[in-house]
Amino acid sequence: MTKGQSIEMILEKVRLGELDIGQAASLLKSYEDLGFAKLDHHRQERTGFPEVVFGEGKTVEQLIVILKRLVKTNKSVLATRIAPEKAEVILQELPYFSYQATARALYSKTQELPLVRSNGYIAVVCAGTSDLAVAEEAAVTAEVFGCEVQRVYDVGVAGIHRLFENLDTIKSASASIVVAGMEGALASVLGGLVDHPVFAVPTSVGYGANFEGMSALLSMLNACAPGISVVNIDNGFGAGYNATLIQRITEKQVKV
Amino acid sequence: MTKGQSIEMILEKVRLGELDIGQAASLLKSYEDLGFAKLDHHRQERTGFPEVVFGEGKTVEQLIVILKRLVKTNKSVLATRIAPEKAEVILQELPYFSYQATARALYSKTQELPLVRSNGYIAVVCAGTSDLAVAEEAAVTAEVFGCEVQRVYDVGVAGIHRLFENLDTIKSASASIVVAGMEGALASVLGGLVDHPVFAVPTSVGYGANFEGMSALLSMLNACAPGISVVNIDNGFGAGYNATLIQRITEKQVKV
Amino acid sequence: MTKGQSIEMILEKVRLGELDIGQAASLLKSYEDLGFAKLDHHRQERTGFPEVVFGEGKTVEQLIVILKRLVKTNKSVLATRIAPEKAEVILQELPYFSYQATARALYSKTQELPLVRSNGYIAVVCAGTSDLAVAEEAAVTAEVFGCEVQRVYDVGVAGIHRLFENLDTIKSASASIVVAGMEGALASVLGGLVDHPVFAVPTSVGYGANFEGMSALLSMLNACAPGISVVNIDNGFGAGYNATLIQRITEKQVKV
Amino acid sequence: MTKGQSIEMILEKVRLGELDIGQAASLLKSYEDLGFAKLDHHRQERTGFPEVVFGEGKTVEQLIVILKRLVKTNKSVLATRIAPEKAEVILQELPYFSYQATARALYSKTQELPLVRSNGYIAVVCAGTSDLAVAEEAAVTAEVFGCEVQRVYDVGVAGIHRLFENLDTIKSASASIVVAGMEGALASVLGGLVDHPVFAVPTSVGYGANFEGMSALLSMLNACAPGISVVNIDNGFGAGYNATLIQRITEKQVKV
Amino acid sequence: MTKGQSIEMILEKVRLGELDIGQAASLLKSYEDLGFAKLDHHRQERTGFPEVVFGEGKTVEQLIVILKRLVKTNKSVLATRIAPEKAEVILQELPYFSYQATARALYSKTQELPLVRSNGYIAVVCAGTSDLAVAEEAAVTAEVFGCEVQRVYDVGVAGIHRLFENLDTIKSASASIVVAGMEGALASVLGGLVDHPVFAVPTSVGYGANFEGMSALLSMLNACAPGISVVNIDNGFGAGYNATLIQRITEKQVKV
Amino acid sequence: MTKGQSIEMILEKVRLGELDIGQAASLLKSYEDLGFAKLDHHRQERTGFPEVVFGEGKTVEQLIVILKRLVKTNKSVLATRIAPEKAEVILQELPYFSYQATARALYSKTQELPLVRSNGYIAVVCAGTSDLAVAEEAAVTAEVFGCEVQRVYDVGVAGIHRLFENLDTIKSASASIVVAGMEGALASVLGGLVDHPVFAVPTSVGYGANFEGMSALLSMLNACAPGISVVNIDNGFGAGYNATLIQRITEKQVKV
Amino acid sequence: MTKGQSIEMILEKVRLGELDIGQAASLLKSYEDLGFAKLDHHRQERTGFPEVVFGEGKTVEQLIVILKRLVKTNKSVLATRIAPEKAEVILQELPYFSYQATARALYSKTQELPLVRSNGYIAVVCAGTSDLAVAEEAAVTAEVFGCEVQRVYDVGVAGIHRLFENLDTIKSASASIVVAGMEGALASVLGGLVDHPVFAVPTSVGYGANFEGMSALLSMLNACAPGISVVNIDNGFGAGYNATLIQRITEKQVKV
Amino acid sequence: MTKGQSIEMILEKVRLGELDIGQAASLLKSYEDLGFAKLDHHRQERTGFPEVVFGEGKTVEQLIVILKRLVKTNKSVLATRIAPEKAEVILQELPYFSYQATARALYSKTQELPLVRSNGYIAVVCAGTSDLAVAEEAAVTAEVFGCEVQRVYDVGVAGIHRLFENLDTIKSASASIVVAGMEGALASVLGGLVDHPVFAVPTSVGYGANFEGMSALLSMLNACAPGISVVNIDNGFGAGYNATLIQRITEKQVKV
Repeated sequence: MTKGQSIEMILEKVRLGELDIGQAASLLKSYEDLGFAKLDHHRQERTGFPEVVFGEGKTVEQLIVILKRLVKTNKSVLATRIAPEKAEVILQELPYFSYQATARALYSKTQELPLVRSNGYIAVVCAGTSDLAVAEEAAVTAEVFGCEVQRVYDVGVAGIHRLFENLDTIKSASASIVVAGMEGALASVLGGLVDHPVFAVPTSVGYGANFEGMSALLSMLNACAPGISVVNIDNGFGAGYNATLIQRITEKQVKV
Repeated sequence: MTKGQSIEMILEKVRLGELDIGQAASLLKSYEDLGFAKLDHHRQERTGFPEVVFGEGKTVEQLIVILKRLVKTNKSVLATRIAPEKAEVILQELPYFSYQATARALYSKTQELPLVRSNGYIAVVCAGTSDLAVAEEAAVTAEVFGCEVQRVYDVGVAGIHRLFENLDTIKSASASIVVAGMEGALASVLGGLVDHPVFAVPTSVGYGANFEGMSALLSMLNACAPGISVVNIDNGFGAGYNATLIQRITEKQVKV
Repeated sequence: MTKGQSIEMILEKVRLGELDIGQAASLLKSYEDLGFAKLDHHRQERTGFPEVVFGEGKTVEQLIVILKRLVKTNKSVLATRIAPEKAEVILQELPYFSYQATARALYSKTQELPLVRSNGYIAVVCAGTSDLAVAEEAAVTAEVFGCEVQRVYDVGVAGIHRLFENLDTIKSASASIVVAGMEGALASVLGGLVDHPVFAVPTSVGYGANFEGMSALLSMLNACAPGISVVNIDNGFGAGYNATLIQRITEKQVKV
Repeated sequence: MTKGQSIEMILEKVRLGELDIGQAASLLKSYEDLGFAKLDHHRQERTGFPEVVFGEGKTVEQLIVILKRLVKTNKSVLATRIAPEKAEVILQELPYFSYQATARALYSKTQELPLVRSNGYIAVVCAGTSDLAVAEEAAVTAEVFGCEVQRVYDVGVAGIHRLFENLDTIKSASASIVVAGMEGALASVLGGLVDHPVFAVPTSVGYGANFEGMSALLSMLNACAPGISVVNIDNGFGAGYNATLIQRITEKQVKV
Repeated sequence: MTKGQSIEMILEKVRLGELDIGQAASLLKSYEDLGFAKLDHHRQERTGFPEVVFGEGKTVEQLIVILKRLVKTNKSVLATRIAPEKAEVILQELPYFSYQATARALYSKTQELPLVRSNGYIAVVCAGTSDLAVAEEAAVTAEVFGCEVQRVYDVGVAGIHRLFENLDTIKSASASIVVAGMEGALASVLGGLVDHPVFAVPTSVGYGANFEGMSALLSMLNACAPGISVVNIDNGFGAGYNATLIQRITEKQVKV
Repeated sequence: MTKGQSIEMILEKVRLGELDIGQAASLLKSYEDLGFAKLDHHRQERTGFPEVVFGEGKTVEQLIVILKRLVKTNKSVLATRIAPEKAEVILQELPYFSYQATARALYSKTQELPLVRSNGYIAVVCAGTSDLAVAEEAAVTAEVFGCEVQRVYDVGVAGIHRLFENLDTIKSASASIVVAGMEGALASVLGGLVDHPVFAVPTSVGYGANFEGMSALLSMLNACAPGISVVNIDNGFGAGYNATLIQRITEKQVKV
Repeated sequence: MTKGQSIEMILEKVRLGELDIGQAASLLKSYEDLGFAKLDHHRQERTGFPEVVFGEGKTVEQLIVILKRLVKTNKSVLATRIAPEKAEVILQELPYFSYQATARALYSKTQELPLVRSNGYIAVVCAGTSDLAVAEEAAVTAEVFGCEVQRVYDVGVAGIHRLFENLDTIKSASASIVVAGMEGALASVLGGLVDHPVFAVPTSVGYGANFEGMSALLSMLNACAPGISVVNIDNGFGAGYNATLIQRITEKQVKV
Repeated sequence: MTKGQSIEMILEKVRLGELDIGQAASLLKSYEDLGFAKLDHHRQERTGFPEVVFGEGKTVEQLIVILKRLVKTNKSVLATRIAPEKAEVILQELPYFSYQATARALYSKTQELPLVRSNGYIAVVCAGTSDLAVAEEAAVTAEVFGCEVQRVYDVGVAGIHRLFENLDTIKSASASIVVAGMEGALASVLGGLVDHPVFAVPTSVGYGANFEGMSALLSMLNACAPGISVVNIDNGFGAGYNATLIQRITEKQVKV
C-alpha cells in the first residue's frame, strides 16, 4: 500500500541484488515504515537534527521500537514528555539511555551532560520554581544537541534585583530562553536588556485568569521589547531546539 | 408611574405646604427623576463622591440637562468620555465647565487644576505615549476630586532604566496608578518595588494578539507581585477614583 | 554561576574576614540562593511585607526548606494553597506553624489569630457558602499581617435583605473584600453603598456558562459602581494583602 | 421550482375554477413566496403571533414589499431594527405605519400606543440611560401585541435605592423585563425580589472587558436568583415577545 | 459580628420578654444565621418559593443541618446536584426525604410525585438520551413545586418525525422546557410550532467544538424563532422553576 | 404519554386485528419507543444509513437493549465511542458483534472487514501516530458501510516527503479523509494536490495553545486550498460517513 | 531571484531555441510569476479546477492583470468577493466578463448562466433573506463550474413547513448546500432528511451572542445528524466548489 | 518632577560648568525627556539597535519631534506603521527620510536599500499577495538594519510546487521569515525543510473563523516542525528584527 520499507528489507534487497547501492542509499536517507509510524531518517540531512520523539500519547512498546530504530542511525537521540513510570520500563530495555526526571526527558548515553564547550553558551532563565520542569526540558534539549547551558532560575520580576544580579551571566550568552508563567513579564524586561535572540516559553503555571498559559502567551506575543519570539505553552523542547540553532551559528564562527 | 420628582416639584410642594421640610430633605437627598435618567443625589452621602457622568452614548442635549442639575448640588462635577465635538457645544452652554482634551474629561471650573496639597500625592505612571489618554483620564479624575498628582510617563519595561530613574517619585506617593497596554508588564515590575497600593489599568493599546486589551488585562490579573488590583480596560476614571479613596485616608491622618 | 549565596556562607566569610560587615549586611538584605529558589529577603524593606510562599506546585521538601529560612528573618511567615496532606507533614517538622484548613493557609505561630486592634478593621464579605475557602484565605492573610477582620458570609444578592441587615458592620470597615462566584453581582451592589476601597475577588464557584470564574471576573471588572478593583479568580490572598495596605495607612493616622 | 405562490395567483386560480375554496384556504394559511422571501402567514395560527420583520440587512424596497403583504392578513404588524433613514422612506410609501425612533421600531397604525388595559401590565426595567434603545424595543413590542407597559428606567444597582423606591410598581406586574449592560447585576437583584417571571436582556452597553455584551450575558445566565431566563444580547424584541406570552395567560384568567 | 440569630435564640428571647411578638415575627420571616450559611426564610414570601439548596460543593454535614432547618418552615424542600453517595448518608439521617437518582435531586416526602392536576401541565422535551439527567432535574423541580409534567424524550431533529408524532402532547402544555446538547436545534424548531413560553436548557452533552455546552448555548440564544428564553448550561432546575411560574399563573385562571 | 410503541406492541395489535397491515408497516418504518430512547428505524429509508449508536454517556445496559433492537431491522449496525471495558461485557451478551479497539468501534459481524471492492476506495490519511484512534474510527465506519479503505498514516508535513511518496495512493481514491491535530496543515497541503472531495477531521492531539483541537479546527476551516470541508474535532465517524456517501455515488456509476 | 517566468518570456526562449518544447510545456503547466503573485496554471491539472481569484484585499489593477492572464489558459475564470465599485472598473477593461451583484462574483462570459443539464443538480438552500449573498456566491460558483442549481431560499426552521413543502426539490439533488446564520439549525434538520452529502455554510448574519458567525459555525460542527460537513463562515465559494466535485462524479455515471 | 532632561539642557549645563563631562556622558547615554515621551538613547548600547518608532497612535507632530531627535544620535532610524498621509507631511519636513509605501515604513536616507552584502541573506517568504504589507515590513526592517533580503512571495501551500521551485533560495539563507494568514500552514511545511531559524509571522488576512489572525497564530504556535518561533499577528517588524540578530551573528563569523 505505502511504499515505506524497513531498513532490513532494503538491506536484504541489496544483498539479493534487487536494489543497487544508490537506490538503497536514497531510500535509507528517506523514511522507515514501522506501520504505526514512519521514521523520518532524512530529517538530519534536511534540518541538521534527527527526529525527536514526543512521548505523550505513545505506549511504552511503541517508544521502545522507535528509540531502538533511531539509535541505529543517529548520534543524539532525544525523547521528551516521558512519564517516570514509562522511563523506568524503557531504561530496563534500553540501558544505554539516560533519564532526567525534572525535564521528563530520555536521551541516549553517548551524550554526556552537561557539556562544557569553549565557545559560548545558552542562558536558560526562569521566573519561578514552578517553571522548573519546562526550563529543564529546554536546558536538556540544548545539552543533548551539544550546547553548554547556564541556568538562572527563580528570577521573576516581583523581586527584580535577583535578575539584575545575574544579568552579566545572561548578557554573555549566545541566546536566551525565558521560561515564565503567570503574567510572563520576565520576557519583556529581559528583551530590553540583551543584544542576542530571546526565545520565550510561556508556561501553564498559575491559576484563574491565567487560563492555562493563555495569559503568559499573550504577554510574550505582545512584549513591548523587540528581539523576542515565542513558542507554544510549556514547549521547553522548542525553545531548546531554536537556541541550539543559534549556538551552532556562533560556533561556526570560531572554526573559520 | 415612578415616584421620582424633580427638585422644582419638591420645592413647589414645600411652598404649597403639601410637603414638610423633613420629607423634602429626605427626597432631595435621594434621587431626581429626569425621565430618561434618575440622578443619584444621595451618592455623595453614601460613597463620599457625587455621581460622575459617563459621556459615551449620551447626546449633547442629555449631557447639558444632567450637568446643569449636578452643579446645583455638588462642588465637583466630572464627566468622562466626552468627545471634543460634544465638549465644544457643551462649553458654549455651560461656560463654567473646563475641558481637558487628552483625557476627554469635562469638569466644573470651581475646580482649579492642578491642586498642590501639602499631604502626599498620587503617582500616575504609564508605559508608552499611546497610553496617554487613559493616564490623563486617571490623573484628571484624581485632581478633580482634590488630589495632587505626579505624572511619570513613557517608562515601559523595554527601557527599564527610565523607570528606575523615576522610582523615588513613585515610591513617595500614597498610591500608584499604572497604565499600560500591550503586555502590561510594568504593573508587575512596579508592584514588586513599592509599599503602597497599586491600581493597574490595562489599555487597549496594541494590535494582533493583544485582542483589544485582553493581553494587558490578563497580565495584570496574573501579576506575580502582590499589592496590585485591576480595573477595566481603558478605565482611567476607575483607577483615579480608587486612588483618591486612598489619598483621602492619608489626608485624614494629618488632620487628626 | 549565579551570585546568590546562603546565609551561612555569607556569615562564614565575615568570620574569615573575607567580607566586611557592610557588604554582608547588603547581601543579607538582598536574596538567598537555595538552588531551586532565590528567597527575596529584601522584599520586606521594599514593600513592607515579607515574601509569601505560594504552596501549589511545590513539594513538601521544598516547602520545609523555604519556611525554615523565612522564619529566621521574618516575624510573619505565610504560605497559601497548602493541601491538608502537605500541612500535616510540615507541621510535624515545623511545630511552631499553624494551619487553617478552610483557607488552606499555614502561618508561623508568633501570630495569634484573630487579632483585635483598636483602630479599624477589614470586612470580608462573601456571597455564598461555596465561596468560603477563598474568603477565608483573604481573611487569614489580613490577620497574619496584623489586621482585625470582620466576616460577613452568605449575603449574596438573591436575598439582598441579608446584606442590608449587615450593612453597618461593612460600612464601618477601613476596606472591604467582596468574594463572589456565579455572576458576582454582590461587588456592584456593595460598591454603590460604601465610601471605602472595595477589593473584589471573583471565584470559580458555579457551573456551565460560568466558565470557571470568567463570569464573575467580567462582572466585577464591568461593575457599574466605582471604587471597586479586582484581583485574580480565587485570589483571596491578593485581596487580603491589598486590604492590609489600606488598614496600615488607617493605623498610621492614630499614631500621628 | 419552489411551490410557493403569491396571494394574487391563488385567488386568480380560484376565480378560474382551477382551485377550490378549501385548497385555497389551506394555501393562504401557509406561506407566500416573494422570491427573495417566503412570508409565513401560517405563523399566527401556530404561535399566536404574526411574523415580525427583522429590518437589519433588508433593503427599503424589500421592506416595503414585505410590509405591504403582511398588513393584508394581520392586525398587528411590527418591524424591528429599522434605521431612521429607512423609516422615513417607508413611512412616505406606507403612511398607515408609525415609527418609534428610540426603539427603531415600525408598526401598523391600527395599533394605538400605549394601550391601557384593565388586567395587569408588564414592567420594563433598565439599568442606565444607555440601555434605553433596547428597553424601548422591548416595551414597544409588548405594546404592539396588546400589553400595557410600565417603564422603570435608570435604576441600576450603583444607586440601589432608586430600584427599591420603584419596587412596588415592578412587583405588581405580570412579568418583568430587565435590560442591563456592563455587569448586568440588576437581573440577579430583581430576581430575588419578585414572584413572577423575569426576562433578562443583556445589552452591549459598556467597554473594555465588557466584550460587546458578553459580560452582562454571562452574568444573567449565572444569576444566583432563580426565575430568570435570558434572551440574546440587545434582543429587546425577544423579551417583549416572551413577556406578552405571559400577559396573555394572565388575561385569559379574567375572561374565564 | 453579624446580626443574624438562630430560630431558637429568637424564641428564647421572646420567652424572656426581651423581644416582643412583632419583632420576633419580623426576624423569623427574614433569615436564620447558621454561621456558614444564612437561610433565607423570607424568600417564600418574596418570590413564592422557598430557598432551594444547591448541593454541589456542600458537605454532607452542611446539607443535613440546612435541610433539617428548611423542613421546619417549608412545605416543599428541594436540594439539587446531590451525588448518590451523599444522598445515601442524608437519607439515613433524614428518612422523610426522597431521592431521584437520574435527576440527582432530593426532596421532602410530603411531596408525592408525580402529581396529576386537573389544570394543565408542563412538557419536558429532550433531544437525546444523554440529556436525560438535566431533563429529569427540570421535571422533578416542577413536580416538587406542584406541577404535572409530561416527558417527551429523545426527539432530536436528526429524526424530526419523532418530534412531530409527539407534537400534540407538547402543544397542549402550559409551557415547554427544551433540553438539548450538541447543536441544540430542537429549541428553534419547537419555538416555531407552539404558542406558549419555551424555556431552553443547553446541556454540556457533546464533544470537540461543543466546548462543554457553548455550542448549544449560543444556538439557543440565537434561535430564529421567538418565544424562547434560555437558562444556564445544564441548569434543569432553573427551567423547572421558570415553567412552574407559568403553570401557577395558568392555575389561578381556574380558581377565579 | 408519547405515542411511540414497541415492535412487539404493534405486532400484537396486528394479531388482535386492532391495526391493519398498512398502518403497522407505516409505524414500523417510523420509530420504536424504548422509554429512554426512540429508535429511528425510518432513518435507513430517509438517509440510506441505519441509526448509528454514539456510545459515550450510555450505560452497558442501554447499549445492549439498543443494539439488540437495531440488528433485527438493519444489516450493518455500528456503535462508536465504546470503551474497552464496556465492549467486553457487550460482546459476551451479543457474540455476533466485533470490536475494533483502536477505533473504539463495535459492529455486527455480518460485516467482514476489510472489504475489497472492485470500484474505488477511500483514502484515510493521518498526520501522526497520536491521531490513530480518530483515523481508525473513520476507516472502520467506512468499512462497516461497505467501502474499501486505504490507510496512509504518519505523513504529517514536518517530513513532507513521506506524503509525496504516498501521493499516488491518495490521488487514486474516490475521496480522502485527512486526520490531523496540532496545526492541521496536512489538510491544506493535500487539498491543493487532489481532484476529489477532502473531508478534514481536526483532532484534539497537542497541548498548550492547541486548546483541545481548536488550533487544528480553525486551520482546516481557513484552509487556503478549496475542496476541503470539515467535521467536528475527533469526529472520525462523521468523516467516514461523508466519504461513504461519495463512494456510493461512484459505485452507482459502474452499475449503470 | 525566484525562478518563475512570464508566459511571454518562456515563449520567447522557445523562439530563440534556448528552451525546447518539452521544457517549455513543463514550465507552462506550472506557474507564472507576476512579481506580486505566482499564478498556478498547474492547478487545473492537479485538482480539476483553475485557480479562483479571491478579490478581497487586491487592487483593481492587480485584479485586471491576474484576470487577463487567467482567461488565456482557462475556460472558466471566477473571481469572488468583488465589490461593485471594483467590478464596474474591471468590466470596462474586460468586457468579456460578467458580474453577479448579490454574489459579488465576476466570471468570464464564455460561461452562460444558468446552465440546465440533463443529469442532476445542486440544491442551494438558505434560512433567511439575509443569507442571500452567501447563498448566491455558492450558487454562482457551482454554475460557473458547469452545474445546474436549484435555489430554495428563506426556509429557516422558525416556519419549518416552508422547508417541508420544498423537500422534494432538495431530496432529488446530487448534493445540498445549506446556508444559515443565527443558530444554523437548518443544517441539522436537513441532514436528517436526505441521503446525499450536505455542505453547511455558517453565515455571520445575526447579532449579539452570534459573535459574527461563531454560533452557526459551532451548531453546524456539532450537528446531531451525520452527512454534514462544514466550510468557513460566509464561505459560499467553498461550498459551491465542494458540491461541484460531487456533481462531477454523478455526471461521470451517465457517460459510462 | 521626572529627572529626564533634553540634550540641549545637559549641554548647556556642561557649558556653565554645572555638570562635568562624565556626568553629562552618562546622562546622554540614558534617555531624553520630551514630556510626552522618553527617548531611550541607551538602547543601542544595551541591545545593539536604536529605538524604533511605532507610528500607530502618534500624531504627525509627535513623530517629527521624535524622528528629529533620533537622527542626531543614530545611524539607522526606522519608523513603522506610518500611514501614507502622515508620511507625506513628515517627508516635507524631514527630506532626508525615505518612505516605503507597501511596508508603511519610514527610514533615514543614510540607509540605501537594498544592500547587497557578501555574507548571507535573509529569506522573506509569504503565502499570498494579501500578506505583502506585512512581508515588506519585515523585509524593510532587516534592510534598514543592514541585511540583504531575498523575497519569495505568493508560495502558499495550495500550490506547493511554487514553494519547492524556490526552495534553494530559501535553504541558502541565514534565517527565514514566513509570513502567512488564513491557516498559516506554510510555516510548518518550511520548518521541516530548512536547517536555520524560522521566524513565523501570522497575519490577519482571511475572514470568518480566521478571527483576525487567531487561526494562523495558533497554527504556527502548534507547528509540528521544530525550529519555528512566532511573533505577534502582523508583526513584520518583530520578525525582521529577530532575523537581523541571526544575520549579525553570521557576519561576525567572517570578520574573525
